[in-house]
Formats: sequence, C-alpha cells, structure tokens
Amino acid sequence: MARKPHVPRKVLPEAFVLGASHTRFGEAWEKSYRDLMTEAGLGALKDARIAGDEIDAVFVGTMSTGKLVGQEHVAPLLLDGAGLADRHIPATRVEAAGASGAVAFRQGVNLIRSGSADVVVVGGIEKMTDVSDADAQAIASAGIDQEWEHFVGATETALWAMMAKRHMAAFGTTREQLAAVAVKNHAHGAKNPLAQFRRAIDEAAVLRAPLIADPLGMFDCAPISDGAACVVLASAKIAAGRADAVRVSGSGMASDSLALHSRPSLTSLAATEHAARRAYAEAGISPADVQLAEVHDGTTLGELLAIEDLGFVKKGQGGPATAKGRTTFGGDLAVINPSGGLKARGHPAGATGIAQVCEVVWHLRGQAGERQVKDARIGITHNTGGTGATAVVHVLEKTEVPE
Amino acid sequence: MARKPHVPRKVLPEAFVLGASHTRFGEAWEKSYRDLMTEAGLGALKDARIAGDEIDAVFVGTMSTGKLVGQEHVAPLLLDGAGLADRHIPATRVEAAGASGAVAFRQGVNLIRSGSADVVVVGGIEKMTDVSDADAQAIASAGIDQEWEHFVGATETALWAMMAKRHMAAFGTTREQLAAVAVKNHAHGAKNPLAQFRRAIDEAAVLRAPLIADPLGMFDCAPISDGAACVVLASAKIAAGRADAVRVSGSGMASDSLALHSRPSLTSLAATEHAARRAYAEAGISPADVQLAEVHDGTTLGELLAIEDLGFVKKGQGGPATAKGRTTFGGDLAVINPSGGLKARGHPAGATGIAQVCEVVWHLRGQAGERQVKDARIGITHNTGGTGATAVVHVLEKTEVPE
Repeated sequence: MARKPHVPRKVLPEAFVLGASHTRFGEAWEKSYRDLMTEAGLGALKDARIAGDEIDAVFVGTMSTGKLVGQEHVAPLLLDGAGLADRHIPATRVEAAGASGAVAFRQGVNLIRSGSADVVVVGGIEKMTDVSDADAQAIASAGIDQEWEHFVGATETALWAMMAKRHMAAFGTTREQLAAVAVKNHAHGAKNPLAQFRRAIDEAAVLRAPLIADPLGMFDCAPISDGAACVVLASAKIAAGRADAVRVSGSGMASDSLALHSRPSLTSLAATEHAARRAYAEAGISPADVQLAEVHDGTTLGELLAIEDLGFVKKGQGGPATAKGRTTFGGDLAVINPSGGLKARGHPAGATGIAQVCEVVWHLRGQAGERQVKDARIGITHNTGGTGATAVVHVLEKTEVPE
Repeated sequence: MARKPHVPRKVLPEAFVLGASHTRFGEAWEKSYRDLMTEAGLGALKDARIAGDEIDAVFVGTMSTGKLVGQEHVAPLLLDGAGLADRHIPATRVEAAGASGAVAFRQGVNLIRSGSADVVVVGGIEKMTDVSDADAQAIASAGIDQEWEHFVGATETALWAMMAKRHMAAFGTTREQLAAVAVKNHAHGAKNPLAQFRRAIDEAAVLRAPLIADPLGMFDCAPISDGAACVVLASAKIAAGRADAVRVSGSGMASDSLALHSRPSLTSLAATEHAARRAYAEAGISPADVQLAEVHDGTTLGELLAIEDLGFVKKGQGGPATAKGRTTFGGDLAVINPSGGLKARGHPAGATGIAQVCEVVWHLRGQAGERQVKDARIGITHNTGGTGATAVVHVLEKTEVPE
C-alpha cells in the first residue's frame, strides 16, 4: 500500500499574527507561574485589539511545569487568568522540551489554516527558578533520552559539548568562534529591554568563564529563566485591513531520534534541515530572502549548527561567518538573534518559541527600537527541543491584508 | 470589534479510524514506558495495515511523564520505538491531565480535516506504577489547581468526593447508587481481556471497602495503572474501500476553571456539556442515537455526572438510572463503559482517551467479543482532566467509505 508523499493543498486559509507580547525574562521570584502567563496573555490580547469573546481556541507550550511548579493541565490557566474561564474555550497544552513554544504556535497556525477557527491565542511559559539550580538542570535534561543518555550520566549540555568537539574536529571550528556567538548575542541583548542579560561581554570573558562541559563554558550556555510569551493568531477575515498583521507564510516541523547514538551525523541536525525545507517550500522562499532569524542558541554550538542547517551558510562555515560579523547588524547575512537569543534574552523553555515569534513580529512592524533590523520584510524562527529531536521553523512576512 | 461566534465550514474533509490497539492495562513492571508505547504503536499500524512511510504526523497524549519516568519530549519516542526516527515525521506531545489521550486524538482529527495530512498516528500512554503509591497519587492530583486546591490539602479524589456530597444533597443520590457504577463496570471489565481488573464485585464489597474521601471508597476510584493505546487516523482517500473504517463524525472540546471554587455549579461539569453539544452538532446526532459510550469514571460520581451532562438522562437521574440497570447490557439507554471503564479497565492517565476510542471502534466493527454491544452503529467517547477543567467528546460511526 505504498503511496506518494502527501502534497499539501496549495491554497490553505492563511494565518496572521495580530498581537505579540512577552514578559521580561529572568528571575521573577515575585511572580507566580499564573501571574506570568496572565501578564503575557493580556499583553497579547491588548496588542491584537481582540476581546476575549472572539477567541476560538487556546494552545500553551510549556515543558516541565509538573516538575517545576507541581501543576500539569495548565492550558485552562491562561483563560482563568484572563477572566475567560466561563467561555469554555478549548485549551490545549503541548510539550516538546525547549521547542514547546514553537510546537504550540504550529498547532494554532494549523487550526486557522483548517478553516475551523478565526482567532487562536498561543502562549508559552516556564517558571524555572523556583527550584534549585541542580534540579533545574536535571529537569532541563528531561528533553534528552532518559534511558539511554541521562541515566548513564549525560546532561543535555554534555551532549551539545560532544557535538561541538565533533564540529571542531570535522570543520576546524575554534573555541574563539564559539565564543563569538555569545559575544554577538550579549551585544544584541544589551539593546533589548526584555532580555535577562543586558550587558555586553567580550571574548576574554567567555574564554575565562567556568567550564560546563568541555569545550562549552558558562557563557556558551543559555541560562535558566522565568518568563512567558503570548501571540494572537487570526484568519484573513479577522486580519483584514490591519496594517500591523504579520503573515505566517511557512510552517515546518520535523523529529529525530531522541538519543544521539541513533543519528548518522553529530554535526548537523536533520530535524532542522527537514523543518526548514518544509517551511521554505510553503513560503516559496530561500534563506537569501530572510533579513532576520531567531534561532535556537541553547548553546553557542547550537547557533552554529542552526545557521548551517537553515542554509544561511555552508556546512562547517558557521564559525567563520559568525567571527567575521556576517550575522550581526551590518553583516551580509540575515541578522541572527537580534533579541539576544536564548543566550542573552534568556530561555524559559516553553516561552522561547513564542518569544522568537514576538521578536520577528516587532521587527517586521518596525517596533524593535534600538535593535531594529532595517527594511525587515521576512524573518524566520527556529526552535529545537533536547539535542534536536524536535525542530520547528516558521516563516513570517510583512504583509498587506486586503480590506 | 464584537463578532458572531465562528461557524465551522460545513464540509470538512472527514477523518476515519483505520487501526486501534492497546496493551493490557495494569501493573507492567516488566515493561518500560518505551516498550509499552512501541507495543501499542506497532499493534495499531498492523491493525490499520499501514506502513511507516505513509505517516504524515504523530501525536502522543501523556500526563506526567516528566515526574513519573523523568522523560519529557516523548512524542519522538513513538517513532523511535517503531524504527521510524529517520523519517523525521512531525511528532507532538499534548497534555491535559486525564484527558491527554482525547486531546491528542482531537489534534489528529483536526489535522486530517485541515486537508494537510492523510495518515496520522495518535498514541496515549502512562507508566504510573514505577513510583510509590503516594507519589503517584500526588502526581494524579497535578490536574487540579495547585495554588488554590492541592497546596492547601485537597487531592483530586477529595474534590470529587465534595461534588458527590453536593449531588447527594441536591438530588437524593445514594451511596448505593454510586456503588452501582462500580458493580456494573467491574462486571463489564470481567469480560475484557485487556482490563486491569477482571473480577466482578458486589455492592457489599464496594460499601465495605476502605474510605478514600467520604463518601468515596476504594472501589469508587479508578486505579493507578500502566498502559498504552494507539490509533491510526486517515483521510477519506486512504480509508476508501476499507469496510472496517470508523468515521469520526463529531469532535467537541471545552475548558473550565481549574479550581472548583470558580464554578457556578458543583453538580455538573460545564466543560462536558459544551464539548458534547459541539460534538453532537457536528455529527448531527442526539444522545438517543448512541448505542454505547465510554465515559470518564475516574470516580463513580464522575460516571453519574457524565451520563447526565452528556444528555443520556436528566440532571439528577444518573444514580437511579444506573441502579436500575438502564446503562448496562439489556438496558434501555446506551451501554455505558462496556470496556469496564477507568474503574475496571484501569486508568493509565494519558492512555485512557485513546483506549476509549479503541473500545468504541471494536464495537462498531463487531470485534468486541463477549462484551459486544449488539447492532452498535454510533458510539461516543468522553474524557475529562482534573475535576473537569478539560472535557473532550468524540462521536464515532460505523460507515461505508465509498471506493
């Protein structure tokens, strides 16, 4: 019963982002999980100029809320916090470790495209600093294979470090090139009022930081963070005439084996390659068309893999391109992580994928302030879980929605 | 910007169940989380006569895998276990406490209906007996409001007990009527080879069992279980000519506030009422058209609320209807929980919603053996999370798919 691969319908109803908001990322000890979600949710509704009774569905991306705050079943909380529980709106939580946010966003896009919803609210959240750092690190490693990796001593960072060693051996990537990712992203984050870290750092600071897993030091790794982000998605009918609407022109998602040992290569993430190919094909674009990309720099090596696997540079060229400044403001490639990325904006796991969408939306609308990427028309987001067993890529475009 | 409620498109591409399988539920200490998922997954693919390269997407419903087995990010595991990781198929985990399975099923249905997938595999799983009973109970209570309920001492069962007291006060429901649910479901489960408990019990056994939360005793509560279930969903194109295909003719989902104190009533679940109304409207049916229903009897009170809120009997009449045998084989209403329900089949949280679909499919195909509901043409599933902050109802119909 073999058959040809499924060919999606050519003309899907289109989805648009109408509102975007995220809390400042960092250590928010004075705010509860519920508070953070409510703050981002109400912010997005206000930005979208949408009232609660217009919402057809809600999705929430969050990773380890059960272990971090004892609460599963969190999707209804977003409505609770917004005073909308009595609307009985379908509310769904999705989870894919660090990619939870983007996977939630994709469910919202799919629902709008199916024609069975006009307004979908998508939130992402994580509250990670209410447990000890050691517990938070162990929880963060729940995205790798427990039976075959974590149980025998590997942490997620240790696996990324192994991939970094392999990348260095295969392509001559240097320690300094890895550090260049952190230096760039801290410089970007310094201009982002919502970033966890707003201080620029130099290469020497990265190189002398405590080692986490050789060759990755503290400044090569995204922090543990609290934060929430939320966007409002709408159909063309609702977005009509809204000059600030941003079109979701491509959505790609792919999986891979959880355990690294089952993959043919350690120097590229096949899930990223597949997700990007699918998203670019839907949008009819190539990487050369993109002015900015929010990519998953959970480690500095993660950003190098990302810009290679997403096609901004050839495999193995991520290090030199970054060190030469090609991926920052004024470079010849897309600006990578103008927000500061996971490294400097912070990485509340489930919130990251939605915050990436917020950042791209703000640039396409011209609202990114000091860090605005000039003439931004097309931006992409790239969010991965674990060591890349889930990858999600979205293409967002500045658009004019017909009245 | 007020607008009318969204009216779904009249003619959606239809979704069909082509394959269904679940493991025996119970204490599976000899099998890992991965083993259980693989067993159910391969069973469903075999039953559907579908090969791996035809799968467009995967959804997995699971509740507390992070706390129970240390593993988040589990959706890719289903593909891993089936030897399909190298297909890089999008794989998404969803979670809504005890309703995780049905919420996952709904995502699969939506994706087929959107026209952007032809074959979607949906799994549900929980491995609950590898932690202590006390831990498992606490984890089971992660579906109620942590800040406002669990933190101050309430467990999920205590809240259901409070609702039971209120139902007794409002409608004269008796302790014996609650017990009748357990007696019926154990009798049904005795004929189900995949049930955790295959022993009939009498009323006296229920009434003398240790009290869990007054008035609910041990036999009023579903057990802690291990188990996995899996179904294969397909578009009309793929289902064409398959005499054993079952049509998903209605899907309804609704939410409510997590905390009981925010709801206007303790004697009905508004989320169930809304989900049922939506599912029945899509399918164009009323409860009188239904021959069997798999409903969420996490407690005996849960089944009474369910048959009232789903419209099988008037509010307050659940107890008498059950005690009179109207909801078992030979009764005048739909057979409720022919599988034995959560009470006797067992309740591996995330697996339950998918096992309910399996059971209805087997009856509609005439494959339910000793417990077959005669002339079954339409069956429904009803799955709730926590104390009903999420409810999902699906309508399944025997069908002839045109060649």
